[in-house]
Amino acid sequence: MTEARTANGQTLGVAMIGHSFMGAVHSQAWRNVHRFFDVPRAPRMVALGGRDERRTKEAADRFGWASVETDWRVLVERDDVDLVDICTPGDTHCDIALAALAAGKHVLCEKPLANTVAEAEQMAAAADRAEAAGVHSMVAFNYRRVPALALARRLVDEGRLGELRHVRAAYLQDWLSDATAPMTWRLRKEQAGSGALGDIGAHIVDATQFVTGERLTGVSALTNTFVPRRPAAGGAEEDVTVDDCALFTGRFASGAVASFEATRYALGRKNAMRLEINGSRGSISFDFESMNQLWFYDGDDPGEHAGFRRILATEPEHPYLEAWWPPGHLLGYEHTFTHEVADLLTAIGTGERPRPSFADGLRVQRVLAAVEKSATNGSRWEQVEEE
Amino acid sequence: MTEARTANGQTLGVAMIGHSFMGAVHSQAWRNVHRFFDVPRAPRMVALGGRDERRTKEAADRFGWASVETDWRVLVERDDVDLVDICTPGDTHCDIALAALAAGKHVLCEKPLANTVAEAEQMAAAADRAEAAGVHSMVAFNYRRVPALALARRLVDEGRLGELRHVRAAYLQDWLSDATAPMTWRLRKEQAGSGALGDIGAHIVDATQFVTGERLTGVSALTNTFVPRRPAAGGAEEDVTVDDCALFTGRFASGAVASFEATRYALGRKNAMRLEINGSRGSISFDFESMNQLWFYDGDDPGEHAGFRRILATEPEHPYLEAWWPPGHLLGYEHTFTHEVADLLTAIGTGERPRPSFADGLRVQRVLAAVEKSATNGSRWEQVEEE
Amino acid sequence: MTEARTANGQTLGVAMIGHSFMGAVHSQAWRNVHRFFDVPRAPRMVALGGRDERRTKEAADRFGWASVETDWRVLVERDDVDLVDICTPGDTHCDIALAALAAGKHVLCEKPLANTVAEAEQMAAAADRAEAAGVHSMVAFNYRRVPALALARRLVDEGRLGELRHVRAAYLQDWLSDATAPMTWRLRKEQAGSGALGDIGAHIVDATQFVTGERLTGVSALTNTFVPRRPAAGGAEEDVTVDDCALFTGRFASGAVASFEATRYALGRKNAMRLEINGSRGSISFDFESMNQLWFYDGDDPGEHAGFRRILATEPEHPYLEAWWPPGHLLGYEHTFTHEVADLLTAIGTGERPRPSFADGLRVQRVLAAVEKSATNGSRWEQVEEE
Amino acid sequence: MTEARTANGQTLGVAMIGHSFMGAVHSQAWRNVHRFFDVPRAPRMVALGGRDERRTKEAADRFGWASVETDWRVLVERDDVDLVDICTPGDTHCDIALAALAAGKHVLCEKPLANTVAEAEQMAAAADRAEAAGVHSMVAFNYRRVPALALARRLVDEGRLGELRHVRAAYLQDWLSDATAPMTWRLRKEQAGSGALGDIGAHIVDATQFVTGERLTGVSALTNTFVPRRPAAGGAEEDVTVDDCALFTGRFASGAVASFEATRYALGRKNAMRLEINGSRGSISFDFESMNQLWFYDGDDPGEHAGFRRILATEPEHPYLEAWWPPGHLLGYEHTFTHEVADLLTAIGTGERPRPSFADGLRVQRVLAAVEKSATNGSRWEQVEEE
Repeated sequence: MTEARTANGQTLGVAMIGHSFMGAVHSQAWRNVHRFFDVPRAPRMVALGGRDERRTKEAADRFGWASVETDWRVLVERDDVDLVDICTPGDTHCDIALAALAAGKHVLCEKPLANTVAEAEQMAAAADRAEAAGVHSMVAFNYRRVPALALARRLVDEGRLGELRHVRAAYLQDWLSDATAPMTWRLRKEQAGSGALGDIGAHIVDATQFVTGERLTGVSALTNTFVPRRPAAGGAEEDVTVDDCALFTGRFASGAVASFEATRYALGRKNAMRLEINGSRGSISFDFESMNQLWFYDGDDPGEHAGFRRILATEPEHPYLEAWWPPGHLLGYEHTFTHEVADLLTAIGTGERPRPSFADGLRVQRVLAAVEKSATNGSRWEQVEEE
Repeated sequence: MTEARTANGQTLGVAMIGHSFMGAVHSQAWRNVHRFFDVPRAPRMVALGGRDERRTKEAADRFGWASVETDWRVLVERDDVDLVDICTPGDTHCDIALAALAAGKHVLCEKPLANTVAEAEQMAAAADRAEAAGVHSMVAFNYRRVPALALARRLVDEGRLGELRHVRAAYLQDWLSDATAPMTWRLRKEQAGSGALGDIGAHIVDATQFVTGERLTGVSALTNTFVPRRPAAGGAEEDVTVDDCALFTGRFASGAVASFEATRYALGRKNAMRLEINGSRGSISFDFESMNQLWFYDGDDPGEHAGFRRILATEPEHPYLEAWWPPGHLLGYEHTFTHEVADLLTAIGTGERPRPSFADGLRVQRVLAAVEKSATNGSRWEQVEEE
Repeated sequence: MTEARTANGQTLGVAMIGHSFMGAVHSQAWRNVHRFFDVPRAPRMVALGGRDERRTKEAADRFGWASVETDWRVLVERDDVDLVDICTPGDTHCDIALAALAAGKHVLCEKPLANTVAEAEQMAAAADRAEAAGVHSMVAFNYRRVPALALARRLVDEGRLGELRHVRAAYLQDWLSDATAPMTWRLRKEQAGSGALGDIGAHIVDATQFVTGERLTGVSALTNTFVPRRPAAGGAEEDVTVDDCALFTGRFASGAVASFEATRYALGRKNAMRLEINGSRGSISFDFESMNQLWFYDGDDPGEHAGFRRILATEPEHPYLEAWWPPGHLLGYEHTFTHEVADLLTAIGTGERPRPSFADGLRVQRVLAAVEKSATNGSRWEQVEEE
Repeated sequence: MTEARTANGQTLGVAMIGHSFMGAVHSQAWRNVHRFFDVPRAPRMVALGGRDERRTKEAADRFGWASVETDWRVLVERDDVDLVDICTPGDTHCDIALAALAAGKHVLCEKPLANTVAEAEQMAAAADRAEAAGVHSMVAFNYRRVPALALARRLVDEGRLGELRHVRAAYLQDWLSDATAPMTWRLRKEQAGSGALGDIGAHIVDATQFVTGERLTGVSALTNTFVPRRPAAGGAEEDVTVDDCALFTGRFASGAVASFEATRYALGRKNAMRLEINGSRGSISFDFESMNQLWFYDGDDPGEHAGFRRILATEPEHPYLEAWWPPGHLLGYEHTFTHEVADLLTAIGTGERPRPSFADGLRVQRVLAAVEKSATNGSRWEQVEEE
């Protein structure tokens, strides 16, 4: 296969740190983005970072990275690296991102941005400074790049929903339903920051703020841990130190009210990231398990003919779709990442600030912090901190 | 048409008070129940109560009631009346029910049972005393009689859902989405008690307690009034004094966590009374807009073949269905009332206490009160009062 | 309960013959129609006809008929009878209808109109003659009275579908899937005329001609009998002498092409009467298992926002709905019959010819005959006979 | 990005001819297959064939092919080419495939295999001879590689559907609904062979034979051309010389009956490749517009709990899924091609004959020929020719 290049021959050296689930899907995006999108600079997959040399080498071969580094501090300083893609657990995001930005590298960072607000604040501040120097950063809330959700954003932006009244968001998974499923790093507070809240709750907080174009101003929350101990390696048991689920209500700046739920115990729901918004003029509804569809109710339709319409978001007029297949030929999960890096590469080319920025990531972090605070204070209403 | 009678010729004199929406649908149930169900006593529709004689007379003719009374105090004392069916606004329930029970009449009372906990307590106490004397009472939470939800209850009861973890309930309507829609008694606190909360929120509180077989022990709530003033008769405007929506989280006795939402502003959702429950072994999902369907995920199915199955609850094995049509020939909204009065008549015949009892209605009222208290106290967690 | 009457006090004496499934649902319609619709004359349920006196008497008590007759020839001559409702198997329709019309009674006849074209021709001719004398008749294709299908008809009529190109109809049931299910009269050619073809295929032939407003002009067909012998009473086996399924293609007068399928072996499909029509400007889709919904694709919508919209046909603007409940409160199977008799009573009052007429029923019969002829001639194309 | 290689370092030189829609999606498959599947030899994308050198060069750069050839006769002889992938219109398949096989190259050929049965016979014979020499060939019916359809096949194979009775297949598109859409090569008989029939009808013929494991033995058909002339380049009009739609019934070897429909005029249906099969023990249903779902009705479930279950075919137990993401993270259209080449590469490695073979492609061609023959003979039943 030929080396990556664009029409003008410009390329961008990319290094990625972390090579499990997110590493695999990001690799797929870097490998293919310029085959479909006219990005100003084509990615060169120059290096993969990981702690275990043998496993990192295997992953690099598998995913198509040209070299490996076991020390991320070395990696982020390499001259052939223009951009650092952070796919590690949340407790490492801050250090890596700060170092990469300091080294003048663009940064793509997986969500949640950090495990604490304090870290996120540092990162957002560093990103602001770097931006002034032409060094860009983005947090990887990939659901913004689902065509159906980008279309929902467009509808809101065009006023087709009118004044927003209700936001109803849920992210339902079931991989912990089995009480005997083993311990993972995702259930340890020191590594993951939080449980369902930070992992998938963060997605719906960002997605609702993105689609509505508004900030959440306050929340009231309830969290729960259904299975407090799980089997660990070696036959022992280990305490689960994060939430298994988080339920919260909230208010958006304009007065819309919202309900949120994130859980890994919704048996039968595999990746049901759901969003419904009701406005005075229209409504939209979405479920990631049918990710190519957006349901739109147009309140301007006469009552006789009104109904939620199932828009198959695979037409050339739909966001990102011109790059792909004919109508009705569906996209999948991975393509949200292709879109993400396409947008990032385009922003790097044009010099526009990419979104979601680290400031957007910080905003989500503040919502998560308010959720946790409310949950530990008897569901008391908490204002989301403003910068 | 022939007069109502059962195989053994026994009948029951029924009087109904109120003749708008609920009156119409209750009439349909009384008129037809014994044509499909083998009830021990067939209803005789002896009298309709209403304040305006002419309009009440017209309604009686339309609905099939043999006589009218403009004073409910007279009505409840009539010798030919064995049962009083209360279809009036909530502020009148308590007085009528107490008088009817005192007169030794069975009572069916529309929901919510009352506008306050204090009234509901009086009613429940009176119902208990009457029950001891063989006088029965029931509150008309008709959604318990949706075959699909009765089937859901059966599945929970049989343990097919295992340990319950999540309850997710919403009742979404949109008839107030238009900010210019006129004022109605349902938007006045003194008549309706509350807004979406008592009208439709009450239904999902009862339905979740019914299907889970558990009580809600605490809640945290948020209510909102989107449109504070509406056009009244005569061109003036009138203040809306109730909630337009109520969102709350809750905990059930066994530890399951729950989210609730009741609103009349979910544009495009006409009567979306939705319920999803996730347990350790199975899940169910329901939406009244497809009321003949229950979705059931059986966690015992092998992963390869597992999926939410759409059970069309029209088989003879399903609750209430033996009385009706062949499989696939759907039932509608009104039949939930037919089932309700069939169950009530059967209970009167057997002497078993009908459910939902006034005590069940009081329990719902206490949840609503806790919701209102939490909403006025910054969403602070409120325990639901126990008797 | 009070006797049937309308505002002006006029009534109509109705006699029904047959008291199994169709008898039950017709009774429900006659009993309740004037409670919801402002019909010019309210039905009086004067007599039920049936061969077995005891069973007929029981049914009359159950369903609300004032008297019984064991000889339909006596019944159709009774002075208190203004209308005869024929709910018997197809082999008796012709004799009864001719006698009733001759006696000057209005006639409602269950579908299919007859078991042969010759019978149907006699009936249609008699109906034409009677019509001239102010005696009306209607064939009971109740699916025309599903609000969602009446709405579909309206959309076609308004040109919202443009030029029609495709009609796709199926009626799928599964009650014969089990090869050991016992013999019934519906599987004997001499009584039922045909199998799935006449029983449920007739419905989709009529429904497609109704919704499109066009005639089927030719067909090519395939029929099959999967289980040739079934257990009969007394332990013997009996030959199934009708089709188990019928599949056919067809052309409508305007050039639209069509596919039809009727079967009782579609395991899991209970009463899936499905219809999809694609035109140059719009499309509609319907499934009776979700009978309150019509899916409409408006080709005039811009591509970005186009999609099949799920119209919940429960708004007051929808056909028949003004008589019923608020939006989102579903109707069921039985209400199609309430609408049917409402329309018939209205036609009798206004003197307009009711539809579907016996001529419409004859048209369906001719299609069925062409289907059978094609199926026995190697699927050869058969023109549908024109009158 | 690193060069393609597998764990053992073995590679396979691939050349592809044609670079429009199919070329783009095949390129994506060749580029990524070994990143997800443990194929015995990794593809090297050595050359792209196309008539126009500049355009071919641009496509090669875009898609990642190392060189270009404008003469396919040269291409198929190149020493660095081990496999030829034919993505050109149907009229060229035969010549290219025969030459490639003669040159000892493995062949992947887009569907339909050829434009005539005679060509397909030549190709199948050549493929048989080549196979004996270890040279493999496959026809690109990619829908066999939809995980949900591969799962359907597995269910049939395991007997979970019992004796098959009904097959109901449709492939509905709408890109010709607009009568003013311009002429394309797909509407010229000499290039495309046929219209909707060969393009998309071929897919459902193969898919049904694949899932059922049975052959279609006879058909009766109807074809139609709704828009006989379309705008051509230069303002002229050109005759459409193919079918716009094809409807046919059929019988499978075991006695199941079938209906098929292929059209490009089903307004609102974008790529609705639908399949439903009803057996004596179970049923399945599928629609490509929701391609990650298989609906399965298990007739062994008790009636009370039976229903079509929506299996989200994204579990590791599902065909092909172990290579991809966690449950609920959907695949898209392109992945069916990734699976296709993974299976082909695996077959080349193991020496097993790949399926669908050219013989399978010939079988489809014979069905299409019978369909055309029946359509031109008044829908007369036509046996499908047996080899």
